[in-house]
Parts: sequence; structure tokens; C-alpha cells
Amino acid sequence: MKPSFVAQRGSETSSDTRLPETPCVVIDVERLERNIKEMAALAARSGVTLRPHAKTHKMPGVARMQLEAGAVGITVAKVSEAEVMAEHGIADIFIAYPLVTRTKIERAIRIARSIALTLAVDSARGAMLLSEMAVAHDIELKVRLEIDTGLRRTGVPYDDALDLAKLIAAMPGLRLNGIYTFRGAVLDGKPTLDLERAGKEEGRLMAKLADRMREAGIPIVDVSVGSTPTAAYAAAVRGVTEIRPGTYVFQDRMQARFGVCGLHDCAGTVRVTVVSRPTPELAIVDGGSKTFATDVQPNTEPLRLEGFGHVAELEDAVLERLTEEHGMLRLGPAAQVADLRIGDTLHIVPNHICSTVNLHNRVAFRHADGSVEVVPVAARGMLE
Amino acid sequence: MKPSFVAQRGSETSSDTRLPETPCVVIDVERLERNIKEMAALAARSGVTLRPHAKTHKMPGVARMQLEAGAVGITVAKVSEAEVMAEHGIADIFIAYPLVTRTKIERAIRIARSIALTLAVDSARGAMLLSEMAVAHDIELKVRLEIDTGLRRTGVPYDDALDLAKLIAAMPGLRLNGIYTFRGAVLDGKPTLDLERAGKEEGRLMAKLADRMREAGIPIVDVSVGSTPTAAYAAAVRGVTEIRPGTYVFQDRMQARFGVCGLHDCAGTVRVTVVSRPTPELAIVDGGSKTFATDVQPNTEPLRLEGFGHVAELEDAVLERLTEEHGMLRLGPAAQVADLRIGDTLHIVPNHICSTVNLHNRVAFRHADGSVEVVPVAARGMLE
Repeated sequence: MKPSFVAQRGSETSSDTRLPETPCVVIDVERLERNIKEMAALAARSGVTLRPHAKTHKMPGVARMQLEAGAVGITVAKVSEAEVMAEHGIADIFIAYPLVTRTKIERAIRIARSIALTLAVDSARGAMLLSEMAVAHDIELKVRLEIDTGLRRTGVPYDDALDLAKLIAAMPGLRLNGIYTFRGAVLDGKPTLDLERAGKEEGRLMAKLADRMREAGIPIVDVSVGSTPTAAYAAAVRGVTEIRPGTYVFQDRMQARFGVCGLHDCAGTVRVTVVSRPTPELAIVDGGSKTFATDVQPNTEPLRLEGFGHVAELEDAVLERLTEEHGMLRLGPAAQVADLRIGDTLHIVPNHICSTVNLHNRVAFRHADGSVEVVPVAARGMLE
Repeated sequence: MKPSFVAQRGSETSSDTRLPETPCVVIDVERLERNIKEMAALAARSGVTLRPHAKTHKMPGVARMQLEAGAVGITVAKVSEAEVMAEHGIADIFIAYPLVTRTKIERAIRIARSIALTLAVDSARGAMLLSEMAVAHDIELKVRLEIDTGLRRTGVPYDDALDLAKLIAAMPGLRLNGIYTFRGAVLDGKPTLDLERAGKEEGRLMAKLADRMREAGIPIVDVSVGSTPTAAYAAAVRGVTEIRPGTYVFQDRMQARFGVCGLHDCAGTVRVTVVSRPTPELAIVDGGSKTFATDVQPNTEPLRLEGFGHVAELEDAVLERLTEEHGMLRLGPAAQVADLRIGDTLHIVPNHICSTVNLHNRVAFRHADGSVEVVPVAARGMLE
């Protein structure tokens, strides 16, 4: 067996030539490497830096692959994720989530003493606590201000951003040198398939705001945007300096429907076994809602995905219903001809790979030569 | 601090008097004990045995509490869960899931050599493999035949069950001594709120089938049914011998809507922190779809739950949207008056506790005296 790609990069792994028991997430390493390379090339072409969100894989080994391909650092959502990544040698991390409690800020300060750490803030109250603790711990914390550009979650409302930035820029212990946003495929507060308009609008809003802040004397360097679906369009906007896509590393059925990739670019599938064939049109597989994420529901706008995943081997099978450990596959005429039997295995591209990987303690990486490594999802599911 | 309830029962725990960082599942031990006692009493009153499904908690310590309260054994869905439970001293386990691959059956046979293990079967093909392997390993395997009574997932179709039972009863190495079903709150293939009719129908179908099998000379002892919502009605049917509810141990918002319990009986809540207050009617908490399960969606029939959980502290707040790590709380007039601030904590009863606990590596048990134990969810998320 050739030396491991993933293990080389610092994960604990066990190696074998067989795939593990089902249900199991299987990552195709060739596709993974291609996805990593392509997004790095897109960022380079657009003249922006790439800081992938590690939420999709939560594995230090994959983060290292992204860094080696040109990413300047990574993004995470939790202090606990930053701790795991820093322990595994990742040296530049942005926690893109407001930390508002003393215990978490203390943990972040510990990390900031050994690596390049950037924190997020979206409120005066949060900024004051960060400032107070930075001063008390005699450290300068690099912070970025989160801007709501239309998703209506965290982020200071756009029109209040300049005033808040002035306030934060004057606080001791904090160095405000960037702004960031996450909007995704959203226009006018609603999910959209018009990625170009969504991405450009996101980028333009941010670039304009950064200019106004600079005019006010705030030295904004990083203007950070972008999700996997909008990355290409947001990156092309003059004034944007960084993109933070996550899903692209594996891709998934949702991204394929967006047109960002093809189904054959999806590196992550869930391998399942047929455990029951009660009727000709029904097959039960050993993956349910504890195996496939259910946050991207079938038949919702604008994606209108049919079922909870795409069955790679059967053209007209629909993963129609899930209970906790059962997946109900409705078989169309072609799939019925295929004579699917109890014990057969199938590979299903999940609607949303990020939340699906998050259900699994370990995933299997399959290399082009057929060798398999089982890698722990080291940063998943902790009490933050 | 008084001696630990959960740790006493064999879990690895760490103890403290403070709750851990958010987001975190918090289990109220008093409510947990009451729920366990009440279901044990219901089973005793109905003259059936209780074999709780451990899918809800996946913790050997909680399984021990159920056994000490009178359960005859436990139910699990995976070989890996049975392995964890057996390693922690649980001595009577039913794997209520068809095992159809050699590797899993070998693992089950290893378990069956040291504890009382019952396996599930729902097809001739599966039974033949079990039989062949039992003979090869010189062991007799206790099996129950799964019957589809209307849910349309695993289980032999009802009308084919007698013929299949005859076939299995004649196979060497297998001792078919029970039948089981899972139907849940379903009538005519659709979700229902009419639990009484659903539960009675489920029980009657099974009791009748067991009688027909006995008439055919098959010594059916166990007639096992029941989910948390239908348990009381199914248990009351003459001829039913066992119930296997799972959710009752913690209860959840779905069960409260079914009328099975009140919201104040829910032992499991998700503790979250308000991280952002961008507008008066919007608060963002640090739990999203990687913290709250999304398999029981808002506004679906027949439950029509509003949002992804019930906020214990605020009467008119709705957990309206989830992204991976963000929960968007829409605040009604009363909640706006409550002056919710960044840093405040809230407790949210999730729609579905089983799949929610499954997202967490550890949960916190809070005792009546205020002491807290953090317990690993030992049997979660493995490659089976």
C-alpha cells in the first residue's frame, strides 16, 4: 500500500484494503484532491486568498491538504474545533463565530498565544467583553466584524456596521482589521438559484462597506466572503480579498443541483447495505436519519431535491423516507429490473455532506489504488 | 456532592457543580427517574415485560437504571451498540435489526457466547445466512421474526409472515421464539394522532398472528410491540407480551404533542447561549442543525410543531431557522419584553430527543441537588 495521503498529514488512522462495515461515509481521495486543487486555482485566478471552512470535514488531515494546495489558513465555527486543529499543527485559524462567554474567550486566548488566531465579533457587548479580557490577559486580539448581508443570522445589520466598527476600532486590546459575512445562495432574504447575482451583491456590499470604513480611518485589510455556491462570483468582485467556502472539499448533491459541480465530482458518498426487500418496489438500507443529515429536506425550494440522496448505482431509486436507522428506497422500473438483493451495497451522495459527516465518528478514505484509510472526524460533536 | 446516579452504573464520567459550555444536552435526573419508573409501572400493570430501546440514550448507565426499575433487557439497533452495552455489563439484549452480512453476524455470535442475545430476521435470505453461520459456529441463535404492521420499512409483509415463520422454524441453528414489530403512531400508512386506535390495531395484528403461528406448531413466546406513543394501548391488548419504547426515558416535544407526557416531563433540554441580538425580534443561539436534530420538521402533519424546539424560558419565542451552528429565535411580543441579552442562556426542549442526543458526544446530567455529571454517549455514531 502506498503511503497514506491523509495519515501523512497527521491524523490517527488505521489502514486496510477493505471498506469498513456499513453505514459508512466513503471519501474518494482523487475527487477530494481535485476539488481542493480547483478551488485553490479559482482563488488564485481571482486574486483572493482562500481560507476554507473546516466545518465540512472537521479533520486536521484534510485541512493540511487544503493548506498545502494554497489556502492561507482555515475557518472554524467553535473554540473546540480551533483547539483540535491547533493541536494538530494548523497555525492560522479564524473562528468565524462570536465568542461571548468568558470561558470560551479564555480558551481562545490560550490558542492565540501559540498560533495566528482571528476572532469574530458582531456586537458592542461582545466586543467590550473581548476587549476587557484581552487587556486583562495582556494580549492583542485580531478581530473581524461580522456583517449581515442578507441571511438574517449573526452579523451586525449592514447599516449599523460603520458605527460599530468605529467603536470597536477604539477599544483597547483589539485589532480590528477585517470584515466578513456569510450569505450563501440567498437573494432578498430567500434561497435562490441565481448564484451570480447573489455572489456579486454579497461581494459589492462588503467591498463598499470596507471602503467606507477605510475612509473613516479604520485599517480594514481582510474583506472576507463567500460560500461554495457563491465563491466564484463573490471572489471576482474588486475589493473582496478572501473567500471561505467549506462544502467544495467534498461537494454534495445540493451543490450539484446548484450547478457548482457535477454529481461525479462529489467525493463523499454514504455506503449502505440493503437489509430488507419486502416488496419489489421497496428496498431498506441500513442508513437513516442518524446516518444521512436531514437539514436539507427533499422537495423544498429552490432546489427541489427528490429524496435524501442520490443513489449512484440505480438511476430511478429515491431515498424517500428515513427513520433513525432505516432508509426507505423507492425503486422505479429500472431499479426493479436491477434485481437488488439483501446484502448488496449501494453508494448514496447525500443532500448535505457537511451535516452528514458530522453524524459519523470516522470516515473511510478510498485511494485510487483501492487502499482504504479510516480517519476519525477529530473535531466533531464536542461540547464546545 | 452525593454519589453519582449515572456513574454508579458504570459510565465514565467527570463531575462538577457547573454545567459545561454550550451548546449542551442537559438531562434532569429527577424527571429521568420518574419517566423510567412510570413506564415500568405501565408495563407491570399491563402484564407485559419492558425491553426499552436504548437508541434514545445510547448510554450503558441509563440502560442500567432502566433494568434496575424492572426492564427485562434492552433493545438496540446495531451490533456496535450491543457490543458497547455488553461490555458495560448489560446481559440481555435484543438487536431489533436484520443482520445480513457475515462480519456483523460473526460479531453477534461473539456477543451471544457471553450474554442473552436475541437477533432479528425478516427474510428467508437473511435467515438462511444466520442459520448457516450458527451451524458453522456451533451455536443456537435465538431469533425473532420482524413483521410489517403498516410502517412499510423492514419486516416481512403481514400476509407472508406465517409461511416465512414455518421456513425459519425448520432451519438448523435458529430458535424462532418471538415476533416483533415497530409501527409507531401510524394508521393506514400515515402518521396519526389517534394513538389508541393505532396501538390497539398494532397489538391485535400481532397477537392474532402469534396465535396462527402457534396453531402451526411454532412455539412463539414473545409478542413484542410498541413505541412510546402507542405503548399503553398496545400493551393492553391480550396476547401482547412485551413493549419496546425508547423515547419515554427522556421524553420530548413530539411526545408532549402526542399527549403522552407534558413538556415538564421532558428530561432532556438543549442548553444554548444567546450569541447575537441583531434586531429586537431576532436572537441567535449557539445551536443549529449540528446540535438540534432536524428529522422532525416544523409544520408537518399531524404534529404541526412550530419551530425546532420549545424554548422553556420564553413563551413566544420560536426556533424558526437552523443553519449548522446557528439557531434563529424569532421573538414574539412577550419575549421582546424579556430583554434577552447576549450571553444569556436558554433551555430548549428539542422536537426529537433521540436524534438530538445522537449529535452529541457527551451530555450533562443535572441532579436535584444541583450537581452535574458529564457522561459520554458511549454507543453513538460508530461505523456499525
